[in-house]
Amino acid sequence: MKLYTYQKDNDGVDRIGVGCTGWPGLLWPVEAFGLSFADMNDLIRRATPAQLSRMADAEQATEGAAVRLDSVRLRAPIPHPEQDVLCLGINYADHAVESARFHEDAFLVNRKKAVYFSKRTYEATGCGDPIPSYEGLVDSLDYEAELGVIIGRDCKNVSEAEAAQYIFGYTVVNDVSARNLQTAHNQWYFGKSLDGFTPMGPCILTADEVAFPPALAISSTVNGEKRQNSNTDHLIHSVAEIIAELTRGITLRAGTIIATGTPAGVGMGFTPPQFLKKGDVVTCEIEGIGALTNTVE
Amino acid sequence: MKLYTYQKDNDGVDRIGVGCTGWPGLLWPVEAFGLSFADMNDLIRRATPAQLSRMADAEQATEGAAVRLDSVRLRAPIPHPEQDVLCLGINYADHAVESARFHEDAFLVNRKKAVYFSKRTYEATGCGDPIPSYEGLVDSLDYEAELGVIIGRDCKNVSEAEAAQYIFGYTVVNDVSARNLQTAHNQWYFGKSLDGFTPMGPCILTADEVAFPPALAISSTVNGEKRQNSNTDHLIHSVAEIIAELTRGITLRAGTIIATGTPAGVGMGFTPPQFLKKGDVVTCEIEGIGALTNTVE
Repeated sequence: MKLYTYQKDNDGVDRIGVGCTGWPGLLWPVEAFGLSFADMNDLIRRATPAQLSRMADAEQATEGAAVRLDSVRLRAPIPHPEQDVLCLGINYADHAVESARFHEDAFLVNRKKAVYFSKRTYEATGCGDPIPSYEGLVDSLDYEAELGVIIGRDCKNVSEAEAAQYIFGYTVVNDVSARNLQTAHNQWYFGKSLDGFTPMGPCILTADEVAFPPALAISSTVNGEKRQNSNTDHLIHSVAEIIAELTRGITLRAGTIIATGTPAGVGMGFTPPQFLKKGDVVTCEIEGIGALTNTVE
Repeated sequence: MKLYTYQKDNDGVDRIGVGCTGWPGLLWPVEAFGLSFADMNDLIRRATPAQLSRMADAEQATEGAAVRLDSVRLRAPIPHPEQDVLCLGINYADHAVESARFHEDAFLVNRKKAVYFSKRTYEATGCGDPIPSYEGLVDSLDYEAELGVIIGRDCKNVSEAEAAQYIFGYTVVNDVSARNLQTAHNQWYFGKSLDGFTPMGPCILTADEVAFPPALAISSTVNGEKRQNSNTDHLIHSVAEIIAELTRGITLRAGTIIATGTPAGVGMGFTPPQFLKKGDVVTCEIEGIGALTNTVE
C-alpha cells in the first residue's frame, strides 16, 4: 500500500491516508479502518502486522470514506523526521564521474567505502511545496533524485541477509544541495541542510510491494526536460550493505530515513552546469512510488 | 545556575535538578520551586524568565529538598537531543596543525570557512557512563573536549551582534571519534556517530553566568595525564559567527546543541598517536561548567 500524510480544508492538521494500486487517485483516512495514530512516526513504530494488513485492503474501509488525492494538500510522508536524514554520497558510478569532474577536491572519493553524511531536517517538504532559492547565499542550487529507505523497527548489528526485514517502505527524496556551500565548507553538511532542502514524497510505498533488492526506475526532470534516468539496482553500495554497515555502530531507529544516493544528471554534471533558478519545476520520480514535484521560489 | 538531568534510587526516571555556585555538591529538584517540566528540552522551550530566576535562587527552594550530587546518577543534561548535535571541525589553530599532520587528505581544510558536520545522537552519554570501544570496528578511538552551546529559542537570520541573546547555556561535550571510520568513509559523519559517542555534561551552565564571548579554560586528561589545555577564546570561528552563519539558512531550534570544536592534544595529535583503549578514564573539563568523566569499556 501507499501511505500519505496530507492536510485538507486548510486546517493545518496532518492526517494519515492509505492508498492502493487498485484505486489510483484515492486515499482512505486511517480512521476509516478504525485506526488512529499521532503521526507517521507513530504509525511506523506502533502499527501491528494485523493493522497494516487491514489497511492494505481498501475493501475493509468504511464505505464512502475515500478522499480524492487531488483534493488534498500533500505533506512529506514523514513531515518531522525524528532524526536527521541519513544520506549516501557518490553511490552511483556515473554520478561519481560527473561529481569529480565538477569539483575534484570535494567529490573525488574512495568508492570502496560508502560515503555517509546527514541532512538536518526539522521539517521535510511535501510534494507541491516550494524549494527556497536563498538568493545571496546560494549560487548553485541543485537537485538529486534518490530512493529513500524507511526503517521499520529499531535495529543494531543487522546482517546483510536480514536487512530487508527491517525496512518499512520506500519513498522519493530530493536531496537538494547548495553546491557552493557544500564545497566551500569542506564537509558537505551545511550545503545539504538548509531549511526546505528535503522534499520527500509523494508517499511511502510499503516494503511488501517491492522485490528486494529494489530495482526501480529512477528519474528526474526540470521544467519537463529529462535530467536523470537510471535504476536503483545500480547502487554502488546496496541497501543491504548500507544497513549492515551502519548498524555495526549505530542503532537505526524506527522511522529513520536513509537517502541512498543519486544517479548522474544533476545540475553540476552538465558543462556548463545547469543549476536551478527561481520558477524551475523539479520532478523526481521512482517507479511504483510516484512523482515528487516542487517549484523553486 | 547549573541545570542537571539525573536519576536516583535506580528507578530509571530522568529528573531535572538545579545547582548553584554558592552550594557546590547540592542540587534541588525543579519541583522544589513549584515547577515541572517533561525534560530538559521542555524546560529550555517553556521556562519563562521569571521561572528561571526563581530557580536561580536556591533560597526559594523548599527547605530540606536539596539532594547530594554525589548520591545521584548523572545523565547527559539533554539525554535525548531533539536533533543531531551540530559540530564544528578544525576550529582551533593548533588542532588544525596536528590533524593535518595525522591525515592530510582528511583534515587539511580551508580555515577561512567553518567546517560543519553532525553527530547522530539518539541518546547522549552522561558523566560516569561508559564509552564503548567497538573492538573489531574501531582501531583508533579518540577524545575531543569541546564547549557545547545550547540554543534557547528558535532563531533564523541572527546577526553576530544578536547571537548571544539566543544562547540558553553551555555544557561540555566529548566529541568521541573513530579516526579510522572518520577518514576511510570520506565524510566524517559515520566515525563521529556511533552509539555512545556523545558524552555530555555534567550540567548546563546558564548563559547569564558567562561573559560573552566565552573565554573559559578547556582541558582534557586521560588517566590523569593532561592532554588538552586551551581556552575557548581561541576559536577560529567564534560562537557569534557560527550562529550568524548557520541561521542564514537553518532555523536553529530551542535545545539545539552546537559543539564548537576541540583544541590540540587529541590522541591522533601525538607521535605516535595515543588512542583510547579499554579501561582508560577520560575527563573533559571547562572552567565554570565542570568535569565530564567517562571510562572506555
